[in-house]
Formats: sequence, structure tokens, C-alpha cells
Amino acid sequence: MRYVPAVTRPIRIGLLGCGVVGQGILRLITSRDRSLERRLGAPLEVRGIVARDVARARDLCGLDPSLVSSDAGRVLDDPDVDVVVEVMGGLDPADAYVKRAIDAGKSVVTANKFLLAERGHELFERAERRGVDLAFEAAVCGGVPVIRVLREALVSDDVVALRGIVNGTSNYILSRMTEDQLDFEVALRGAQEAGFAEADPTLDVSGGDAAHKLTILATLAFGAKILPRQVATEGIERIAAVDVRMAARFGHVIKLLAIGRSLPGGALDLRVHPAFVPAHSVLASIGGALNAVSIVGDSLGPCMLSGLGAGAMPTAMSVVSDIVDVGRNLLMDARGRVPQRAVREGLLVARDVRDAGQHVGPYYLRFSVLDRPGILARIAGILGAFDVSIRQMVQEGRARHTTDAVQVVLFTDPCRDADVRSALREIHLLGGIVEPARAIRIEEG
Amino acid sequence: MRYVPAVTRPIRIGLLGCGVVGQGILRLITSRDRSLERRLGAPLEVRGIVARDVARARDLCGLDPSLVSSDAGRVLDDPDVDVVVEVMGGLDPADAYVKRAIDAGKSVVTANKFLLAERGHELFERAERRGVDLAFEAAVCGGVPVIRVLREALVSDDVVALRGIVNGTSNYILSRMTEDQLDFEVALRGAQEAGFAEADPTLDVSGGDAAHKLTILATLAFGAKILPRQVATEGIERIAAVDVRMAARFGHVIKLLAIGRSLPGGALDLRVHPAFVPAHSVLASIGGALNAVSIVGDSLGPCMLSGLGAGAMPTAMSVVSDIVDVGRNLLMDARGRVPQRAVREGLLVARDVRDAGQHVGPYYLRFSVLDRPGILARIAGILGAFDVSIRQMVQEGRARHTTDAVQVVLFTDPCRDADVRSALREIHLLGGIVEPARAIRIEEG
Repeated sequence: MRYVPAVTRPIRIGLLGCGVVGQGILRLITSRDRSLERRLGAPLEVRGIVARDVARARDLCGLDPSLVSSDAGRVLDDPDVDVVVEVMGGLDPADAYVKRAIDAGKSVVTANKFLLAERGHELFERAERRGVDLAFEAAVCGGVPVIRVLREALVSDDVVALRGIVNGTSNYILSRMTEDQLDFEVALRGAQEAGFAEADPTLDVSGGDAAHKLTILATLAFGAKILPRQVATEGIERIAAVDVRMAARFGHVIKLLAIGRSLPGGALDLRVHPAFVPAHSVLASIGGALNAVSIVGDSLGPCMLSGLGAGAMPTAMSVVSDIVDVGRNLLMDARGRVPQRAVREGLLVARDVRDAGQHVGPYYLRFSVLDRPGILARIAGILGAFDVSIRQMVQEGRARHTTDAVQVVLFTDPCRDADVRSALREIHLLGGIVEPARAIRIEEG
Repeated sequence: MRYVPAVTRPIRIGLLGCGVVGQGILRLITSRDRSLERRLGAPLEVRGIVARDVARARDLCGLDPSLVSSDAGRVLDDPDVDVVVEVMGGLDPADAYVKRAIDAGKSVVTANKFLLAERGHELFERAERRGVDLAFEAAVCGGVPVIRVLREALVSDDVVALRGIVNGTSNYILSRMTEDQLDFEVALRGAQEAGFAEADPTLDVSGGDAAHKLTILATLAFGAKILPRQVATEGIERIAAVDVRMAARFGHVIKLLAIGRSLPGGALDLRVHPAFVPAHSVLASIGGALNAVSIVGDSLGPCMLSGLGAGAMPTAMSVVSDIVDVGRNLLMDARGRVPQRAVREGLLVARDVRDAGQHVGPYYLRFSVLDRPGILARIAGILGAFDVSIRQMVQEGRARHTTDAVQVVLFTDPCRDADVRSALREIHLLGGIVEPARAIRIEEG
């Protein structure tokens, strides 16, 4: 009764992309060939590598240089390629290539979060219809196996909520601001010098990257059709050193959170924004370039995963584990074994997404005001008129001149987001307000 | 090309054990029947329930009472049972039942950590030879999907080390001692009253339960044959309020850790013991009845999972997810798809386990001494003679009478465990030492 593989030939891989992750994949496949063969039950064989810079890839791949080409057809049209591994990134031409691979009946492993966030539903359905595997552990938080946990470990549960620190760059910058009392701009430059932020950090610090990841996580967690533009997104660019200092003074730290919740009534709450979290919470302890995702399951209760969110080797490791996974399905003739969650019966369901203005929770508010008599009373009055009640008020510093601004910080009771925004707009019209107020949500740990 | 199940009939389950976890499983299977069917691709059907207290189980099962019996043969000998779910616990008769199920070609899902820690190797090999699945996510840290992560997400990596808080009872007691400045005995009674500790808490507070879990985790992580008696095990029974206070004073908390490391040279370091961990580390933030396992992979780097370690519903959820997993393999005729790690080529390998005395690290030492001139010098002298060098020394309190003991606390530089033990034995022979010294290892976060 010992198992006999349905396919006794090697699992043959075509690699699209030969950047740092692609090279990491090749390194793992070649250096761990024997243990991978033992665990998979068949050897892995690289049939072709598609790279933009062919000469460079030939130098770096560590394999027969003739495997490298700039022609994706060499991989996509090769009937002997079983698994297409896409680590090019970006929407085009990755989208077309992945679709061609699926249509050709090949299993696909991708690390492309942009592609999945924007085109995931189409790709899931296409793979499901064609009966092939589409695996993407590395697409979200490279070294955190959250996709597998959502798709498989929680298959018998309903996810109620998830909350994550999913952008390592932002987390690194906020950690530096907290630990070293740096301004945002200084911390950003430090992150760039340390290799934790790109030359153009916009997608990271604006929350856009986190919104992509939340889209994928929430699609799986809630079995819903979600697009990145449905995620209310706010970045960390406007967090100032004084906000971080105030957070610490009141027992909190500031983290960029990605939050998805299934609300009573069926709508989803989807948002990415900086938030105060208690200093002794588990989320607060996720420092530097780490990522973490906490999941609340109806039966499971709370569960959290953390690890390196990016980096060539953690990401490559996740890709190769996915290759082994889809390889086992090929050997067993069991492709499509794990359906794209809730897709089996047709499509992912559409779910309403609650307007961000409907969010209710406590807020941290900071005003830069000229130190004039009566201004605090007027701020408090406007907040009160919008049902924003103040729990605590602190003034930092004392102005020496009437033209100096002081920082006034308020902590509110739970209130409606739209009311806070309306109140802040009205307060901004007061004389003596030096710059737009900052509002940061306070989340529980 | 849409996938057609190899088996179109339901996946039929026989349940051994109908305690709180068994009832939780039945509740999930009946209340989530439609979503489980959609995700699995076939309905789940309970064919038989074996319970000690048949009348009670008939009342509680929520199914046709005639399904319940005290005769395990009703499940084990039923050729229509596809999956045997063992949630009886204990070694006998669970061991014999699981073996019978495997030999009969049934897939097995078990939540029995005792069984797996003591007989895991035999069972893995038996299941492997017979070509059936043996799934056991719920056996270690019920609500933490660490088994799946070790077996699948890390299939392409080598685990370098793992470290866990895997006993919820001990963690709850230590958390209460820390937060409420309680003595061990008081915290234990509180844990018993709150339902977090059994009437006989020995297995939990002695570290025995954690050693069982470490055995299973390390077997998977290192592909090694390990037995619980190879784990150097120390419990929390001797932790005093003063130790917790001292930990806090020096920026630490005390946690019961289970540690497995693959040492250069090939031996394993396996131990369960209380340890000081930095107050701001992630492990320190794992409070109450939570469990956490951190894993360091050669490629992955650090990764951590946390969640509820026990409880009927988290554990039942993990069992049912395993049922779906082995059910998919049945539907796809892909049993044995994920080999018991590293078992495929024969057996798990034997690895040397390093003697606990060889451990090198910093220690917290506490002495109850009579406040006599010269005693500290003599303690320091003996420690020095055994190469235990002192980084810091603190005395708590001052004796009013010469018969009062004071607490002297030392923090050492890294030193060898065997040297510490030898020094303590010699120090114990000094006059003026009131009770045996306490030695607690200091671990990094």
C-alpha cells in the first residue's frame, strides 16, 4: 500500500523573474535539492528562467546559462513546464503571463501582491475553472505563513476580524521614531540608508502597500470580493515626533494597522491607518521590519502570526514551500485540492464595505494653536457640538511669544469618525489654529 | 477540466471520545455543515461516537442517539468509516485504537499529545507504511496552527531553533503572580477556581505537559526521534513572589519556556524551564492562558505564532480543519500527500541530545541567607571558583534580628549550567544558608 507517485518524472519549474527573490529561489532549489526531493517525493528541475537582464541572470543563476531567456514564451509555451513561478512583480505583463500559464493547465506560484490585490478574483476563478493550483503565500508578508493559515488551518472557522502590521517599512520608521525620538523625515532617510525603504517610499508610507495586503487577506478571510480602492487608507507621513512622544506618555505606541472586520449585518470594515495601541500589547512588541497579523476566529478565538515581512530569503522560502505544495498535488494528481476559499460554488461573494466615516472609536487629536485666551474653550465647544466628548486634555509647552504655537492634545471618548472630521473642519476655521489638526485612532491591543 | 471528486459519497467520521472537545467537534460539524461541505467538496457524516458515559453522550451529542456506543469496534471495524477522530486522550486504549484504525486503512485525526509524544515515531511510520494520513494539529497548542506551519510552510527550510510558551496553566499562574504580586500557591488556587488549572495540576506546573509538546514540535522541526524523557524539564513550583518581583525590577518577566535548538555539530538542545525574558520582548507579551511558539528558520528567519493553547472550541476547530484536510485527500485519492516530515525515506533520524549541564547562559541566582558578616564574600568566592562570574548583586530587605533571612540576588555572566549547580551545592553547605538557592536561566527575548 506504499504510495506510488502518479508522475515519476521531476517537477519542472519555469521561473518568471530573476531579481533577488528569484535568485533566492534558485539558491534554495539548488542547495537544498536532496532534502526537497525527499520531502516532495520527486526532484525539482528548473526548465527555464525569464529575465529582463539576461546577461546578468546568466551570471547569477548558478545554472546552465542557456536556461535564461528574455522570452516568456520559453516558459509559458513549454509543455514540459509543470509549475510557473512568477516573481516579476507589477501588473503588466505578469497578469497576462499568469493567465496564459493557468490556461495552459500549469500550476502557478506567485509572490506578486499587486497582481493578486487588483486581479485576485479573476485569477482565483480562472484557476478554479481550469482545475490548477494558484499558490501565493509569499505575496503577503513574505516570512509569515498567514495565507496557509487562513486557507487551511481556519477552513472550519469563520473569521470575525483580522488586524495586521503588514508594512515593514512603515513599521521600521515608526519604531525608529519611537525609540530614537526622530522626526518622520529623519527616520525615513535612515530607513532608506538601512535598505528598509525604497528610493520612492510612497507606496509604503502612504499605506497603499498595506491596503494591497489587506485586500488579499480580507478576500481569503471573509470569502469576499474586495478591491484595494475599497480600503479606507491613510499613511504615516503626517505623524510627528510629538505624536509619538504623546503616545508614549499615555502608555501607547503608534503603529500602522491594516484592519478587516466582519460587522454584524454583513458589511465589512476595511481600513489602513496609523493607530495608538497599548504599549504592553502584543502588536506594540512587533518592532522594526517585522510583520504581524492577528486573526480572530469565531471558534478559534485570537491567534497571531509574526515574522519578517519581506527579504529575499524569507520570501524565497515561502515560494519554494508553495512549489513543494503544488508539486505534491501534481504527483498525486490532486490539483485544485484546496479550493480558493469559498470559490468552489462559483464566485467569491460581494460584501458591502462600510464607509470609513461610520467608524466609532476613541481618538487622539492634536492641535497646533496660538496660545490665546479662550481658544481651548472654543475647540472644546465645537467638539461638543459634534458629539465628540473629551476624556483628557494636555497642553505641551508654553508659548513665549503670542506668535508661538503650542501643542494641545485631546483624548476623546468613542465617537463617530465623520463627526470628528466635521468638527476638525470647523475648528480649522477658527483664528489661532496654526496647522491642520491631527486625528489618530486609538485601538485596543 | 473541472475537478471531479474521486469519492462522491460523504466523508464518514467515527469519533472516539465525547468530552468537551468531542462535543465541540460535533457542534462544529452540525452547525457549519453547509460551509464545511462547500469548502471540502463533500458533506461530513458522523457514523459513530464512542463514549465512556454513553447515556450522557447520547444526551449531549445532538445527533441520533443510536450512533453512540461504548464499543470502539463500532467505529474501528466499520468499513464505511473513512476518518477516525481520536479525542479520548491518554495512552491506553487510545494507542491501540489509533493503530487499529491505521492498520484498517483509515485516516486518523488526533488531539492526543500524550500519545504522540510517547508513541509518535511508531505511529508516523505506521501511517506512512500504510499510506494513510495522520493529522494532529490539535495535539499541540490547540488554537495555534504550529503543526501545519512546521510540516508545510517550512517544508523548504531547516529549523534552527524553536522556543515556546506552550503550557497555558503555567503561563496563567505566572501572569497572575506578575500582575497581582501573588505567591505561587495563591495563584495556583486562583487558576483552579478560574478553570485554568486541573484539580491535580502536577503535569502542568512541573513542565511535563510542556515537555510532551516540545517533543512533538522538535520531532517535526528537526526530523528527529525524540522522547519526552530526553527533555531536561523543570517546572514553576519553586518560583517565589520575590523572584517575580526581582525580574520586574530588572526589566524582565518569568515565563515557562520550551526550547529546542539544533546545535552546531548535530546535537539537539531540548529543555523546559522557567526563564527570565525581557519585559518588552514579544514572548513577555504572551499573557494569561495564551500559548506562543517562535521558530527560527535558516532561510525564514524568526517567525512566531500565538493563540489559545487549549479550550474546547479552539481545539475542536483545529480537529475539524484536520478532518477537512484528510477528507480532501480522500476525495482526491491523495492520502499520505504530506509525508510525516522526513519520514518518507525510512525513519526519523536519531540525534544526540546535549546534556543540560552543558548549557551556557546567564543566570539569576537567589539565596536566602542569614545576614551575617562575610557570607556574601564566601558565596562570591565559591561562585568564582566555579567560573561563575557575577555581573550584579542586590540584597532585598535588611534583617532586624540575626535569625532573619534576607534575600540576596545575583545576576551572572554567561556560565555553564553544570558549574552553577556545583557551586550551589557547595554554597548550600555554608552556615547561614536558610534554604536551597534558586537558579533561573535568563533568555533573550
